[in-house]
Amino acid sequence: MQLGLSVSDSDVSSFTPLVVLELADDTKAEAITWLLNRIRDKQKNGGAELLVDQLLFPAQDGQKSNPNVFVVGSTLQRLLKGAEDVGLFKEFQDGIMRGFTYANRESFKDFYGDGEGFLSDAECQYIIKHELDTLRAKNEEHVPGYPKVKLYPGKSVVRRLQSKGVLVQYFPLHNKEDLKRLSFSWYKKIKLSFQPLDDIRHYFGEGLALYFGFLEYFTFALVPMALIGIPYYLFDWEDYDKYVLFAVFNLVWSTVFLEVWKRCSATFAYGWGTLSRKKAFEEPRAGFHGALGFNPITGREEPVYPSSKRQLRIYLVSVPFVLLCLYLSFYVMMVYFDMENWAISVYNENPNFGTGILLFVPSIIYAVVIEIMNLLYRYAAEFLTNWENHRLESSFQNHLVLKVLVFNFVNCFASLFYIAFVMQDMVLLRQSLATLLITSQILNQVMEAFLPYWLQRRRNKKVHKRMRRVMGDKELPLLEQVQLETEMNTYLGTFDDYLEQFLLFGYVSLFSCVYPLAAVLVVLNNITEVYSDAFKMCHVFKRPFSEPAANIGVWQLAFETMSIIAVVTNCALIGLSSQVKAYFPESETQMILIVVAIEHVLLAFKFILAFVIPDVPKDIQVKLAKLEFDSLEALKKRDD
Amino acid sequence: MQLGLSVSDSDVSSFTPLVVLELADDTKAEAITWLLNRIRDKQKNGGAELLVDQLLFPAQDGQKSNPNVFVVGSTLQRLLKGAEDVGLFKEFQDGIMRGFTYANRESFKDFYGDGEGFLSDAECQYIIKHELDTLRAKNEEHVPGYPKVKLYPGKSVVRRLQSKGVLVQYFPLHNKEDLKRLSFSWYKKIKLSFQPLDDIRHYFGEGLALYFGFLEYFTFALVPMALIGIPYYLFDWEDYDKYVLFAVFNLVWSTVFLEVWKRCSATFAYGWGTLSRKKAFEEPRAGFHGALGFNPITGREEPVYPSSKRQLRIYLVSVPFVLLCLYLSFYVMMVYFDMENWAISVYNENPNFGTGILLFVPSIIYAVVIEIMNLLYRYAAEFLTNWENHRLESSFQNHLVLKVLVFNFVNCFASLFYIAFVMQDMVLLRQSLATLLITSQILNQVMEAFLPYWLQRRRNKKVHKRMRRVMGDKELPLLEQVQLETEMNTYLGTFDDYLEQFLLFGYVSLFSCVYPLAAVLVVLNNITEVYSDAFKMCHVFKRPFSEPAANIGVWQLAFETMSIIAVVTNCALIGLSSQVKAYFPESETQMILIVVAIEHVLLAFKFILAFVIPDVPKDIQVKLAKLEFDSLEALKKRDD
Repeated sequence: MQLGLSVSDSDVSSFTPLVVLELADDTKAEAITWLLNRIRDKQKNGGAELLVDQLLFPAQDGQKSNPNVFVVGSTLQRLLKGAEDVGLFKEFQDGIMRGFTYANRESFKDFYGDGEGFLSDAECQYIIKHELDTLRAKNEEHVPGYPKVKLYPGKSVVRRLQSKGVLVQYFPLHNKEDLKRLSFSWYKKIKLSFQPLDDIRHYFGEGLALYFGFLEYFTFALVPMALIGIPYYLFDWEDYDKYVLFAVFNLVWSTVFLEVWKRCSATFAYGWGTLSRKKAFEEPRAGFHGALGFNPITGREEPVYPSSKRQLRIYLVSVPFVLLCLYLSFYVMMVYFDMENWAISVYNENPNFGTGILLFVPSIIYAVVIEIMNLLYRYAAEFLTNWENHRLESSFQNHLVLKVLVFNFVNCFASLFYIAFVMQDMVLLRQSLATLLITSQILNQVMEAFLPYWLQRRRNKKVHKRMRRVMGDKELPLLEQVQLETEMNTYLGTFDDYLEQFLLFGYVSLFSCVYPLAAVLVVLNNITEVYSDAFKMCHVFKRPFSEPAANIGVWQLAFETMSIIAVVTNCALIGLSSQVKAYFPESETQMILIVVAIEHVLLAFKFILAFVIPDVPKDIQVKLAKLEFDSLEALKKRDD
Repeated sequence: MQLGLSVSDSDVSSFTPLVVLELADDTKAEAITWLLNRIRDKQKNGGAELLVDQLLFPAQDGQKSNPNVFVVGSTLQRLLKGAEDVGLFKEFQDGIMRGFTYANRESFKDFYGDGEGFLSDAECQYIIKHELDTLRAKNEEHVPGYPKVKLYPGKSVVRRLQSKGVLVQYFPLHNKEDLKRLSFSWYKKIKLSFQPLDDIRHYFGEGLALYFGFLEYFTFALVPMALIGIPYYLFDWEDYDKYVLFAVFNLVWSTVFLEVWKRCSATFAYGWGTLSRKKAFEEPRAGFHGALGFNPITGREEPVYPSSKRQLRIYLVSVPFVLLCLYLSFYVMMVYFDMENWAISVYNENPNFGTGILLFVPSIIYAVVIEIMNLLYRYAAEFLTNWENHRLESSFQNHLVLKVLVFNFVNCFASLFYIAFVMQDMVLLRQSLATLLITSQILNQVMEAFLPYWLQRRRNKKVHKRMRRVMGDKELPLLEQVQLETEMNTYLGTFDDYLEQFLLFGYVSLFSCVYPLAAVLVVLNNITEVYSDAFKMCHVFKRPFSEPAANIGVWQLAFETMSIIAVVTNCALIGLSSQVKAYFPESETQMILIVVAIEHVLLAFKFILAFVIPDVPKDIQVKLAKLEFDSLEALKKRDD
């Protein structure tokens, strides 16, 4: 809550600015007045009761900057009441996490004095976002000055302004001091310690903290595999039994670590108060449109879109499109194999250093093409899922994830499957796997951190210079900060980061018994990934709003599915190996039956393991039960 | 709530008797006085505030009957308040199921006047049971008159009396008129209609109603399979493709019907108010013992038993015991095969009608032995699980179910697996399956309904005669009823009934592609099963207390596991069939690979199907969401 600056230095009333609202620069004055009034109005009148002020940028000679930029803040009391509205869980005196209530605020553990410092920065911004989002139209039929931007009672004002382009963006401001401290303990000091997850959560919220927690956990979980994998590479082990051992270890290990992660994430989420927090009623997402009707649950007016129409769009357009893309991906794969063959023939005709390098070129080109296709498909998928017009953000996300996962899985692994099971060429498989893995990692890190950083730095310098030129030596740090951050890229959520880890997990587990070194490569990649991701969060992107998350959601399922597929592929690979075949010289049938039996046993073992390991550790279970028991008892007492 | 009789006819104060308490006949007078006082005492003094009276049986010449039999009843107001305590859900004016509160009672749909008839008989008895169970010791150190029956503050009095044998039993009374009406609409009239599930629920509670609902659903679900199975038998179809078709249909169908059942059961449970009802905090079960300590959740004093000790008992005693039993079961199976061989050799030496019948004798003996072993094992398992000293009834049940399921599965199906996959004799498989299925069904129905009924009738006649002799023509129907019901057997819950259906499901699905007629036999069996089960509930056993259940619990999982195993067995059977082998004359390997591939596709399909079909129908989802939304809104309003 302590931002080094306050709005006062730019000549307006004094409060700590937390969120920036940017309206289109041609917004009508009456709409602005109306919006500000609604934001400032008392809650009992249906307002948000927040503090808001315009940022006036000095006139500039060359470029005109947008005059309609506002900062929003709040009194401490309002924030504490808002914390109750959004259902924040905080640690109580007795060490149990309980739903925060303003009336009982003094009984919470870290509440001192008037509550300064009780809420983290990210929480305050989340509360303000929630209050802005739930600022609802009263009797206005449209936004003043915009007869076409219709409103109806209960419609979220901010969402309507956003979907009509009047509200360009709103985002939380960075807190320069906190950021400095965080980035120092996170990635600036050379250290052998864990990431400061609590600080990350404090600054960026639970969703991101869980991602970084998962990234760290995943990396550590790969270390044993990497350690076991190294001797295979060093000593050129090619013994069948050693590979089988590695594969079995790998499969059991991946099941155990995914199960244990659930427990870790439950522990994190409990400590952060998101585990027992009830989800608020989900509002329609900003882009959702339809004829006005009534919501059967809330009874409120809201757009209604027949789900049959959506089904039609999904099955008649989206599914065929995805299939077409998959076909395209196969086609590209076949082209790659042609290139590969051509390169080999060139090398065979004239084997020298140049043609030796040529051998790697098709794989590298293919890896680059895969990345580009993934990127293009990502946009297409987002467009299509948007067009499917899902009512809820969660349903939108699920459809998007499903589309992207299927395509990325096929696009990245199809060639490897082809090499492994159709061509049955284990040497080529190993080589392709290594090339794909390394190329895509390098590309990824460049694309997601260094390129944006470089662009950002260029922009920063320009802004800085411009501000200096205009204002001379006058210290206007808030104005400069807002100007800078307004132009930063928006972080689009943890989707792409998880996706990357998911694909890495695929490279490690699907063909683990052929290429044990993959784990080593992924561990190395992830160590730099922590740094580049941390860096990009702190310096490349706008600060994102905190997202309360109790687990990694659909990704848990995705990783588990991958580990099931891995059992099948590894067993098949072992069955294909010539050494295994040599063990059963007479009867191939018997060999296959044994491999299939082992596969079934492994699969059954996985399911039993997943069933036996409780998802929530015992001590957290007790705490959750205590909370529930206490609230039941309290209810009884109240009724008596 | 209208029982034909009231206690008044036996010379005590007038109330409708609902529950019978039987204390040991040598119970000390001071203990009785104390207990009755505690039951009658006001709630604010820690009593149960119920009505209770002694039933005085006239002295009898020969046999002395137990003088310490009591009937418990309650005022209507107390019951309504109790309904709130136990968290009953009832239909509100707006058609949504809501938690009943005494204050809002007038707003519930079927509440007229003072609420007479609002609660069902079963609910009233459940409430009384709950109030008795939660009657807690205050400062008493032991039960008066019994210095060894220790108490501590918060200990459930009834549980302690029960575990020490002072309280022999307590059970709800039948309501003769309701029972007559129910049994008429349930099984007495010849009809082609569904069971009166709502009436069953009204009389016996949700747990039993769900069982009968499942029984009916399962039977109807088998009808398509049975219909398709008949022509296979009639026309002696032996074509491979027809069997494959049947198997595939069977597998897909069993997945779909198990998924759809979840939706049905959700619909039932919603209408009965158990779906959204929160589980109360689970108390330790009656038999649980240990050193006195503190419960970390409630903070109350209660026995504590280290879970490490329990683990030791489970892994060092229970698990080896189960394995030993499994070994024994295998041994018996091998003896059976010896007998089988002997019978065949006798028949071959001298084939005539007598030796022809001899062929079936081993199977029948084996089926009988299996049933006996299952029965014996059941007692052993119960003893062992009890000895493991589980704190919660639910955990006790889970361990018991697991033990019994594993053994019954192996015991019933081991010989079939042996015949199918080791001997690969499909004719013998078909014959054994039929014999096992038919014999076990006949045995089951005799053991579970007709034998107890016959014993019960003999007892009834004796009691009736005795009462007549003692009391001449004086009408004392309540006394006679209590005397009769006290001596009836106790219904031990739905466990055995579900177990039977589970094994039947195994017979139908595991080898469906070899013996399509199994479904026909099971349908026929289940039609009589409905009648015999209904009959046994109404006339053979004591009325059980209602058990609020929202689903069939662990049995859903058991049935789903069985349907997964069925995919594997059916695919294997198809792979073994000579016709399939004939399709791939050159390469057995290729055939196996194709079968394995199909199996994987079917398994994947099952999982996807289970994932895609929502467990709760859309309209119920909306109602649940509306309830949650309303309570959130109400909470907000209350705080304002």
